[in-house]
Amino acid sequence: MTIGGEDLKTAQTGTVGRSIPRLEAAAKVAGRAEYVHNLQLPGMLHGKIFRSPIAHGRIKRVDVSAARAVAGVHRVVTGEDVRAIVADPHYGPAFHDQPILAFEKVRYAGEPVAVVLASDPHAAEEAAQLIDVQYEALPAVFDEVEAMTSKAVVHEVLRPAGAFPDLRHLQGRKNTNVALDFHLRRGDAGGAFSRADRVFEHTFHTQQVLHVPLEPFVSAAEPGEGSVTIHTASKSPSFVRVEVARLLGWPENRVRVKVPYLGGGFGAKLYIKLEALVTVLALLTRRPVKIALTMEEQFYTLTRHAASLRIKSGVTKEGRITARECEVWWNGGAYADIGPRVTQKSGFTAPGPYDIENVSIDSYALYTNLPPAGALRGFGIPQLVWAYESHTDMIARELAMDPVEFRRRNILRDGRPQATGTVMKDAAIEKVLERLAARMEWKKPFERGSGTRRRGRGIAIGFKASISPTTSVAIVNLYADGSCALYCSTVDMGQGSDTAMAQIAAEVLGIPVEAITVVHPDTDVTPYDMATLGSRSTYHMGNAVRRAAEDARDKLLAAAREAGLPAETTPIAEVFRRKYGMQAGNIVGTGSFIPAYTPTDHDTGQSPNVTPFWMVGGTGAEVEVDTETGRVRVTRLVNVADVGKPVNPRIVETQLSGAAVMQLGFTLFEKMQFDGGQVTNASLAEYKIPGMRDIPVMENEAVDGAERGGPFGAKGVGETGTFSVSPAIANAIEDAVGVRLMSLPLTPEAVYRALRAKQGKPLDD
Amino acid sequence: MTIGGEDLKTAQTGTVGRSIPRLEAAAKVAGRAEYVHNLQLPGMLHGKIFRSPIAHGRIKRVDVSAARAVAGVHRVVTGEDVRAIVADPHYGPAFHDQPILAFEKVRYAGEPVAVVLASDPHAAEEAAQLIDVQYEALPAVFDEVEAMTSKAVVHEVLRPAGAFPDLRHLQGRKNTNVALDFHLRRGDAGGAFSRADRVFEHTFHTQQVLHVPLEPFVSAAEPGEGSVTIHTASKSPSFVRVEVARLLGWPENRVRVKVPYLGGGFGAKLYIKLEALVTVLALLTRRPVKIALTMEEQFYTLTRHAASLRIKSGVTKEGRITARECEVWWNGGAYADIGPRVTQKSGFTAPGPYDIENVSIDSYALYTNLPPAGALRGFGIPQLVWAYESHTDMIARELAMDPVEFRRRNILRDGRPQATGTVMKDAAIEKVLERLAARMEWKKPFERGSGTRRRGRGIAIGFKASISPTTSVAIVNLYADGSCALYCSTVDMGQGSDTAMAQIAAEVLGIPVEAITVVHPDTDVTPYDMATLGSRSTYHMGNAVRRAAEDARDKLLAAAREAGLPAETTPIAEVFRRKYGMQAGNIVGTGSFIPAYTPTDHDTGQSPNVTPFWMVGGTGAEVEVDTETGRVRVTRLVNVADVGKPVNPRIVETQLSGAAVMQLGFTLFEKMQFDGGQVTNASLAEYKIPGMRDIPVMENEAVDGAERGGPFGAKGVGETGTFSVSPAIANAIEDAVGVRLMSLPLTPEAVYRALRAKQGKPLDD
Repeated sequence: MTIGGEDLKTAQTGTVGRSIPRLEAAAKVAGRAEYVHNLQLPGMLHGKIFRSPIAHGRIKRVDVSAARAVAGVHRVVTGEDVRAIVADPHYGPAFHDQPILAFEKVRYAGEPVAVVLASDPHAAEEAAQLIDVQYEALPAVFDEVEAMTSKAVVHEVLRPAGAFPDLRHLQGRKNTNVALDFHLRRGDAGGAFSRADRVFEHTFHTQQVLHVPLEPFVSAAEPGEGSVTIHTASKSPSFVRVEVARLLGWPENRVRVKVPYLGGGFGAKLYIKLEALVTVLALLTRRPVKIALTMEEQFYTLTRHAASLRIKSGVTKEGRITARECEVWWNGGAYADIGPRVTQKSGFTAPGPYDIENVSIDSYALYTNLPPAGALRGFGIPQLVWAYESHTDMIARELAMDPVEFRRRNILRDGRPQATGTVMKDAAIEKVLERLAARMEWKKPFERGSGTRRRGRGIAIGFKASISPTTSVAIVNLYADGSCALYCSTVDMGQGSDTAMAQIAAEVLGIPVEAITVVHPDTDVTPYDMATLGSRSTYHMGNAVRRAAEDARDKLLAAAREAGLPAETTPIAEVFRRKYGMQAGNIVGTGSFIPAYTPTDHDTGQSPNVTPFWMVGGTGAEVEVDTETGRVRVTRLVNVADVGKPVNPRIVETQLSGAAVMQLGFTLFEKMQFDGGQVTNASLAEYKIPGMRDIPVMENEAVDGAERGGPFGAKGVGETGTFSVSPAIANAIEDAVGVRLMSLPLTPEAVYRALRAKQGKPLDD
Repeated sequence: MTIGGEDLKTAQTGTVGRSIPRLEAAAKVAGRAEYVHNLQLPGMLHGKIFRSPIAHGRIKRVDVSAARAVAGVHRVVTGEDVRAIVADPHYGPAFHDQPILAFEKVRYAGEPVAVVLASDPHAAEEAAQLIDVQYEALPAVFDEVEAMTSKAVVHEVLRPAGAFPDLRHLQGRKNTNVALDFHLRRGDAGGAFSRADRVFEHTFHTQQVLHVPLEPFVSAAEPGEGSVTIHTASKSPSFVRVEVARLLGWPENRVRVKVPYLGGGFGAKLYIKLEALVTVLALLTRRPVKIALTMEEQFYTLTRHAASLRIKSGVTKEGRITARECEVWWNGGAYADIGPRVTQKSGFTAPGPYDIENVSIDSYALYTNLPPAGALRGFGIPQLVWAYESHTDMIARELAMDPVEFRRRNILRDGRPQATGTVMKDAAIEKVLERLAARMEWKKPFERGSGTRRRGRGIAIGFKASISPTTSVAIVNLYADGSCALYCSTVDMGQGSDTAMAQIAAEVLGIPVEAITVVHPDTDVTPYDMATLGSRSTYHMGNAVRRAAEDARDKLLAAAREAGLPAETTPIAEVFRRKYGMQAGNIVGTGSFIPAYTPTDHDTGQSPNVTPFWMVGGTGAEVEVDTETGRVRVTRLVNVADVGKPVNPRIVETQLSGAAVMQLGFTLFEKMQFDGGQVTNASLAEYKIPGMRDIPVMENEAVDGAERGGPFGAKGVGETGTFSVSPAIANAIEDAVGVRLMSLPLTPEAVYRALRAKQGKPLDD
């Protein structure tokens, strides 16, 4: 087919694989890109949330009279008001556990208890400070391991959402904080340990950290006639529609969810955040209602799981790992959000990208009285890789074996079963390891510094399954001049999905990418997509888009053949002229994609098909450690990844480096501090995220791979760069100064303490 | 399939054929329905048009300096500014003849010459009055018959748009005001006239009238990055996109056209009106621009064609019409708009719904120096029926034959060829005539009044072809709970199309109509539709919607069968659960409809397939004429129509009565008055439209019909009620007081003059 007279082939025009500039770049530079924060609706009320100051307690009395008396306040809404008008006051993707507004109980410090509505957001904020709530404090639990046995129980009874089969057995369970227990058993770990030449066991910890998208959470709702339109900075518009419809007891078609551009997401803006709340407020007031959180309020909304991870390995003297046991406790905070899936999905990759015959894994999602934890770029994998790749280096060091060589002897190769029993395919673990070693010039001598500045280097590799089974649907509407619209609910939050999807459609249709308009998510318009998460979009939506474009192309070619035109060389516009005469007409193609999947067995975690594809990423770090201050300077970071065949190499590059920088912050300094469950550093003045001066020299490489199931050989890359940064740096620190840190972040203080301990000196010497 | 547990069959649930309340009724009553007039965009400029005061002249100088100096004026734009930035400054569906803003010449009094842009529309209006333009006046022509031979030539050279094959031969033609000459020859009219027992010839006239939607024309444009979004009260969003893209030289996907509800259309808001102008203004200023016309400005934008119609019939003494000759001159005004299609489409039905062997028709579209004429509810047919059904009664009267009986002997029956040679099918002409006679109790004695109040009755029947070939495309997106969205570019301008389309989809899917959301026209979202005109939507879009719903249903049933579920009785939500597991998913169906068509032969007007269906309508009128004042009071109006099987009987009823009331105004009092081409009654104070007190007792009936090609047997009804009102009333007047009026409107003055002339008395006696 051709467009505009230009001759282009129907396939492999070279659009896919090219670093085409992002479609939205000009609009963003010009300040024309739409964000919900900028949305103004006639008659709109602004909501300001009043939050619980205590971590666990019964609500005895809510006095909103002073707040209501503030000039300009339209209404003050409490959890009891909300309960009165919904079919279910509890939302959540895994458990129906989170109240739209707290009622009866609060379960973490920062939980929303009431909302003040005013035309002026400042009036609302002033009034919110006047709300007076009396609580009866309850014992609280904050540590994930303690939560296993604590008498402080966060939820009286468990109420799984029903969507996930591996949660159904928890229905109605009482007196427990365990929101999911995942178990995997393969081979005979016990026997293998007893036969092993060496056994190593280490326990690691990670901290609570935050997504910090520069656009905080924001949602607005407009009431209609028995309907509602929600404008939201969400990565899961389809889920929001279905869940809000369920909460209200309405059919789906009465709930419309529109998503413009997002100012970052990183896993935070998934499932329900403010959407149910603004919807209920809009229905209560019959006015549009918007809530825009502050940066500070992000600290009370969603975090990354802190985790405790115990890993034990049995190893032969030749350096083969024969047995592994993992126990992981995930600190899920007060509401499960998608935490149980983090537990399950990261659980089954806990042995790492290694070929280990005998495996035993126990992974627990725990409720605690902290802010809820959920998905954050990597979905549990960076925490796991932190532990298992620190552990790997520690073993190699004990065996006096080169850490690259030790990994080389153990890595999982295509055709071999992973711990779940799923046979590996198209996972370029070996290529990633070897390219990493080559880029790091691992065999060459390394300059180790001198005096108080010591240099070291480290590597780490990790892998991740994709979320499964998930569904994507796409529509391609081809216009008479060969330009077209692509309807797709994938949310472009800065990762470049609009451009990648347009490239895939352009490739199939043989048209320039500029001829494609990507219609932004709007559940009345763009068809279902599970969500933009887990690096699933390029593969899942990419396949749906490819199929939709192929469907349109096939219909176009059929029209050409019916008209007796040479199908492959006739310009698209000419086919339309012959098919539609005086009319312009449209040709609509549809595509749907849902990969096959077999759920993991409840007792053994086994499944012959646990994921449609694997993401593989490795990082090499070079560091300089100041032995006087403990300060670690990362001087070089090499990120190597298997992304299949990149759709847009430049976007892949920015995904890898963006992910690595994000994980660098989590590795070196980011940490939420708590006092009695209350966040004590809830501001970007006190919670540091990486700035330009923290970013090391970085190199990114996509190995020569190909995902056979992906569109044009592509697979996801959004998280891959996060996997291995933390252990690579920790391994480099030990290489530099001989201390091993078991907890994140690797702050100067932690390094300094370890150095002093190693030297047997007191801290203040 | 079932939804929500309710057991419903997959077909014929009874949704189609039921008078379901309109889907948008609640939103309209609550004042929440969206109209472009209410649209406010950040930074928006308001445009006010400066119009030519003369009917024909060369523009010598445009001085905008005084206007530009008015406080708050952002910019003043002239035709030369527009020319500088577009690929083609002339738009139009039939001819590329109408400048976005006049340059070099003006061709009618009221033509836009310049636009003032200001943030405050009042400032723009004030400034527009200060624009000073010098013209060199040119000779003008106003009468359509004179235009055939006038030396005043409106357009130097003809430039057909290219879409219509029957206009292509006019390309480049000079020194003519004839924008289309349509000719039809069937049998041997000349010979038949010479053999006829009696020959009758009459000439009729109709006046310029106006659509007067209560929402005047309004459009707004937002500039993007190499793109534009147009919000417009348009009935042809797909055409606007394609045409604006052509004017700018852009691909279609860079032009987005969104249409909310319309406050009436009646044919006015078709093709390009303000859309190209606001687009160019937005691109020139890089600001959103809106132009909202006043009621007065509607008089300078689009009218219904005045026409002169000469009809000659040869008749046997038994009352069979054996020959007919028609010559029709259509006053198209200064720009063709869709006038040439009016000429062609009404041309070929000029013999009326009668079976006449020998026919000769010549129909001419003329340019004159009046405001452009285009489509208005009936597309030329009401003017034609006015002439041929007055003529029919005059012949019957001359033959001393009952007018029902005379028609009965001549009507065209299914299986017989119409004048084009197309064989009639599913056109219930006979049923309409017979039901009309029955409803009017034609055989019963009729009370004729006394003194100065004389009563009479009349009937008339007419028919119309649908516009062809035209294309409609629809998408149905079925959600996991069985509710769905219907994507459809049919514009609901008050006629109830949203409801009718939802009923058709609901019927196919076996779901309640409330479970369907109709997505409003948006060219980035809803697929192509030719336009909402010519009563084509129920048939064309109805078929496309039916096919899209069937496609979705077939995919759903296939999914059920794949899952081993009983396809016909499983609830939709259960099929989704089995197909998509944890996911909600969507099933997308698409449908496209373009009926077969053979263009009319250029020389003979013959075609074996000139329309996909026929609309048939008859009216019976009872009047009381005041012989002292000439005032006509219509005391009863019976509208009988063949609409196939009604999708929504209540909506059909309101379409019939609404159309009849509209035509009643055109019949009794509406008329644009001109002086030297300038409209002299351009306000609703001086141009009367029907009010509540003008509306007679009305009865509406849809005969028992079925259009086999239509969705569930339906066909269009939007225009049918207009066809026969004028001649029925004129026939009733002659029946009452024995005077025959040959020109519309039938004002008291005209009746009085005719009465005095009949009595041989001077007017002021």
